[in-house]
Amino acid sequence: MLYFNNDYAEGCHQSILDALVKTNMEQTLGYSEDSYCAAAREKIRKACGNDKLAVHFLVGGTQTNLTVIDAALRPHQGAMCASSGHIHVHETGAVEATGHKVLTLPSTDGKITARQVEQAVLAHRADGAFEHIVQPKLVYISNPTELGTLYTKQELEDLSAVCQKLGLYLFLDGARLGYGLMAKGNDLTMADIARLCDVFYIGGTKVGALFGEAVVIRNPALAEDFRYIIKQHGGMLAKGRLLGIQFDTLFTDDLYYKISAHADAMADRLRDTLAEIGAPLLVPGTTNQVFAILPDTLLEELAKTVTFSEQERVSDTHRAVRFCTSWATKAENVDTLCRKLKELAAK
Amino acid sequence: MLYFNNDYAEGCHQSILDALVKTNMEQTLGYSEDSYCAAAREKIRKACGNDKLAVHFLVGGTQTNLTVIDAALRPHQGAMCASSGHIHVHETGAVEATGHKVLTLPSTDGKITARQVEQAVLAHRADGAFEHIVQPKLVYISNPTELGTLYTKQELEDLSAVCQKLGLYLFLDGARLGYGLMAKGNDLTMADIARLCDVFYIGGTKVGALFGEAVVIRNPALAEDFRYIIKQHGGMLAKGRLLGIQFDTLFTDDLYYKISAHADAMADRLRDTLAEIGAPLLVPGTTNQVFAILPDTLLEELAKTVTFSEQERVSDTHRAVRFCTSWATKAENVDTLCRKLKELAAK
Amino acid sequence: MLYFNNDYAEGCHQSILDALVKTNMEQTLGYSEDSYCAAAREKIRKACGNDKLAVHFLVGGTQTNLTVIDAALRPHQGAMCASSGHIHVHETGAVEATGHKVLTLPSTDGKITARQVEQAVLAHRADGAFEHIVQPKLVYISNPTELGTLYTKQELEDLSAVCQKLGLYLFLDGARLGYGLMAKGNDLTMADIARLCDVFYIGGTKVGALFGEAVVIRNPALAEDFRYIIKQHGGMLAKGRLLGIQFDTLFTDDLYYKISAHADAMADRLRDTLAEIGAPLLVPGTTNQVFAILPDTLLEELAKTVTFSEQERVSDTHRAVRFCTSWATKAENVDTLCRKLKELAAK
Amino acid sequence: MLYFNNDYAEGCHQSILDALVKTNMEQTLGYSEDSYCAAAREKIRKACGNDKLAVHFLVGGTQTNLTVIDAALRPHQGAMCASSGHIHVHETGAVEATGHKVLTLPSTDGKITARQVEQAVLAHRADGAFEHIVQPKLVYISNPTELGTLYTKQELEDLSAVCQKLGLYLFLDGARLGYGLMAKGNDLTMADIARLCDVFYIGGTKVGALFGEAVVIRNPALAEDFRYIIKQHGGMLAKGRLLGIQFDTLFTDDLYYKISAHADAMADRLRDTLAEIGAPLLVPGTTNQVFAILPDTLLEELAKTVTFSEQERVSDTHRAVRFCTSWATKAENVDTLCRKLKELAAK
Repeated sequence: MLYFNNDYAEGCHQSILDALVKTNMEQTLGYSEDSYCAAAREKIRKACGNDKLAVHFLVGGTQTNLTVIDAALRPHQGAMCASSGHIHVHETGAVEATGHKVLTLPSTDGKITARQVEQAVLAHRADGAFEHIVQPKLVYISNPTELGTLYTKQELEDLSAVCQKLGLYLFLDGARLGYGLMAKGNDLTMADIARLCDVFYIGGTKVGALFGEAVVIRNPALAEDFRYIIKQHGGMLAKGRLLGIQFDTLFTDDLYYKISAHADAMADRLRDTLAEIGAPLLVPGTTNQVFAILPDTLLEELAKTVTFSEQERVSDTHRAVRFCTSWATKAENVDTLCRKLKELAAK
Repeated sequence: MLYFNNDYAEGCHQSILDALVKTNMEQTLGYSEDSYCAAAREKIRKACGNDKLAVHFLVGGTQTNLTVIDAALRPHQGAMCASSGHIHVHETGAVEATGHKVLTLPSTDGKITARQVEQAVLAHRADGAFEHIVQPKLVYISNPTELGTLYTKQELEDLSAVCQKLGLYLFLDGARLGYGLMAKGNDLTMADIARLCDVFYIGGTKVGALFGEAVVIRNPALAEDFRYIIKQHGGMLAKGRLLGIQFDTLFTDDLYYKISAHADAMADRLRDTLAEIGAPLLVPGTTNQVFAILPDTLLEELAKTVTFSEQERVSDTHRAVRFCTSWATKAENVDTLCRKLKELAAK
Repeated sequence: MLYFNNDYAEGCHQSILDALVKTNMEQTLGYSEDSYCAAAREKIRKACGNDKLAVHFLVGGTQTNLTVIDAALRPHQGAMCASSGHIHVHETGAVEATGHKVLTLPSTDGKITARQVEQAVLAHRADGAFEHIVQPKLVYISNPTELGTLYTKQELEDLSAVCQKLGLYLFLDGARLGYGLMAKGNDLTMADIARLCDVFYIGGTKVGALFGEAVVIRNPALAEDFRYIIKQHGGMLAKGRLLGIQFDTLFTDDLYYKISAHADAMADRLRDTLAEIGAPLLVPGTTNQVFAILPDTLLEELAKTVTFSEQERVSDTHRAVRFCTSWATKAENVDTLCRKLKELAAK
Repeated sequence: MLYFNNDYAEGCHQSILDALVKTNMEQTLGYSEDSYCAAAREKIRKACGNDKLAVHFLVGGTQTNLTVIDAALRPHQGAMCASSGHIHVHETGAVEATGHKVLTLPSTDGKITARQVEQAVLAHRADGAFEHIVQPKLVYISNPTELGTLYTKQELEDLSAVCQKLGLYLFLDGARLGYGLMAKGNDLTMADIARLCDVFYIGGTKVGALFGEAVVIRNPALAEDFRYIIKQHGGMLAKGRLLGIQFDTLFTDDLYYKISAHADAMADRLRDTLAEIGAPLLVPGTTNQVFAILPDTLLEELAKTVTFSEQERVSDTHRAVRFCTSWATKAENVDTLCRKLKELAAK
């Protein structure tokens, strides 16, 4: 069986595994107050080009999203996001469980625009009964988005500017950030993101780590007492050094970028094959997620030896499915997948 | 100035005022454990044709909605409603503040259908990642809806059946229930509603009372420990007899129905005039809310002597506004309004 | 039956009733944006000697406490109070339901001291694992306390100073504030309280109104967006003018103070009798609550014609009970109670 | 430096590390739906002697406590625990953040009794205003407790019986469960605990794992939809097999028990030395936590080469500190510590 259904099917990159093995019996302070976390923080600050950033390590994405959003908002405030936003769709109401409404903006490509944000906020403020409506205060975006699309530098500049103008926080979910930064056509850097967002996170779980997300906070208003809120939501890992060791490794010798580039290249190879066989993409993309529209008959055959995830029905005979590559994807497996696709398409 | 902007501009019906004055210096138990509340409960049970119903009195609608929904749901469960649902749009995230997501179903007339509910729930259950998604458990409808439309008996029977089949709670927000029950074309009775819903409430604030909503619970699972939850959310009125006295009066000699019928008749009169001048309704209706589409120029003139509330822009030159009648609306004021509309339309 | 079990057994003072009757059919804006609320706000600001105070009207005490505390705190912060504090003991976890822990300080007289607050906060800050502990941020006191005791001006000055020094909010629950201000030996004024607290409320429910508490906010950080939070917790009364009319009346011609003084005088009369028959007080006091220690045998007889509330068992043969007077207490009823006590004590 | 300040200073047991290394590049399903988790569940069920138990894996203790308690309670219900309970003292209000009050019972040894629970619940139910008070519904105990003490089989039987009689849930926090089960004098088995508690968890973080707690649910009412609630609180690990692999290893060849026994033996050695030098224990105990009362002067010297954690001041000259052993503690380090203690005591 070839697994292309997600980007968290394996353990971790060999360098991380080596580091965990090597340090296993060392004794360190708990709760991310150890020297590995300190080193990882320094490397992330350097990658972001700002030595004043607060950096915290959490275990998973939903935990990170709910912690950041809960830390940022007063009770009557909500988080705006695309209708496909992970916090809206796939986190079992984790944000609502902290008391905050998720306010959706329509989107077909997973992205939202500065103009949409501005219109929504101005409409709220102009409403005669605004106190009866949740106050939009934070903009949640993911990059890459849930559909594998990317914000351009200009788009992020615009979002950042409108957030600053309107007194909103801009929060970028980077669960797959590496795959975005290394994608063909991407013009954003880690430093751009750190400069333009109030807070964002660098995903480790899907990019080489066993688990772990590094939250980077530029806005001091969001940084205050953040560790209390991590703890309150059960996100304070006792052996925090496990997170430090992993991010320290990922940010040594550009490992994070190199393994991300590999995944994107593997996905590009698959996209080339899909183009060759005339299978359209549901959404164009250049990252590690490939949303392909294929005939049910072909997919039925393919499913016998390849796993993929279901996205949506497109017509009576075709549906969109998702193939994920990752840091761990082997080139020969992609080649096998491509060959199978060509064979099945030729039938 | 003529007020048609809402249905809570005055105090209360004279009979209620008389009762409050008459009983003012009586000493009673607090927290709705007095004899007036007991009497009101009995009358409401009788009006509902079921002497086993639990009846509780709360002060306002948002408080009632959040209390009922919080009492009904486990943490991971959400409330489904129309995209125009009051709990979704105009309660400052009160439901989310109790930790629960509001799950919207598309609607243009303020109503949702049994089929929509069934499809949403079955789609949830069929989703491969359902545990990552809020579980739909309660159906919130309002009758009349926020757009003044009404459920037919058949529609409510269908909703009730699908809820029972799928293990959902059906909750009807009756903030304007009287205006619905007495509207032309309505075929639902109070007893039907009490039979078909797991829980509903009878609105007092907008129908003759100073304030107050009577929650009627048929499903014993929702009734258990309900008073604790009222208290926890700050909804337990110390001088609860004020609620008892008001509902006792409203349910004596059919006062609740009579004053509702008056408001509907006043709105019908306005609808006749709008038809006469060729002004379409945004949504057809027969209750006390009239959503009229009128030219901006006419509305500008009208606003000098009449208050109404803004609903939405319909075209570059026309917008929809809402006129509300109520138990307190004077016929001569409606006539003045109608005359003005005709004059302005004739210009 | 003579009711001395609480101070909310009747409706409202005749002047308030008259005002409600007189204004009943007036049409006003909703949600406390009417002219009566505006007038009441002005009078309260004047009574507090500060024309910059924010004043909001809510319906009841638990609602007020949870709304103020939720508005004030970030997620990881808690409210300190005496172990007998109403928010800790008698509000069904309303504060916890907003996500915040109540942090108790030991107290036998219902009061806490500046020194206790300072020690608790400094201990928190000195704790090596402080991020694992709820951060104390708000001090909740009630005046009069749940035991009828009063803070002196010096004590409140000290609490205020320590709160300011440590960056805490000071919140005074004045559910029975009038009875405190008019009590023998009290040296605090309304203006003192408004000056020394960040936020407090003036109780109406127990002091002449049908219902209603006036929240007075001095600290602008607490005032921001307060109406959103009222609405979110279901505390925004549609016919808000009912609150405005009541507080406007209470703060006209010193009505609030006069009726409070009456209640205290009635309680003093009862305290004199208790002294006369040698019945000790559980806690010394001068407000409208009288906590008397009496023999079970006497209480059993008394209960046949008088209601009182149970406080605590003191010995095998004696227990403490509470008698409440109020603005509505009739002198002849107190005299009857006193005569009965003397008779029963003489047996 | 010798670390005795906690039991989570190292990584994981070598067998677990080996298993993680060996399986690292395998591809598995996510979210604990893999075969390693399935195998671990089976072994835990077997260890508990009940093949119907639901078993779930979470990352850390606070996360586990908040998830279990939130899953168990309705909004108005609270969790009872000893005043020293971890959920009350050291979880930054995690339980309150889910909306529930923690109700403390006085305790000096970290334990609570069936009699205390019964009295508290009966007092609640007998209170005339019980709806104004949080309803006790769940009993939280830890075993070993935060003070290293243990429940006897009889005590747990009694607690279980009273919980069943009163309709309460009994929840045992087993963060250090292994150290309890293998301690001298303990008469409880894993199967006893599984039989007597509605839900408990087996701690991995402090007993050989990198991280991880295995929740074991006997009561079906608590098991329903539990995975939704894990996800909602951010506790659903993407690479869930990491938890499965660890617990599978811990429950193979009695590893969990063997490494626990080692830690207890190391602590016993320390306790022997303390007895020898006449240093009393703050609380008697036989598990891996040693609470010793020692002179400040001695501790000052000792702190130069040994880490320990501060517990409390006992007198002007003495204080209690905690030494922790663990699965990873080396015998030679304990011997060094003991030698130092003797030397310093002899000065």
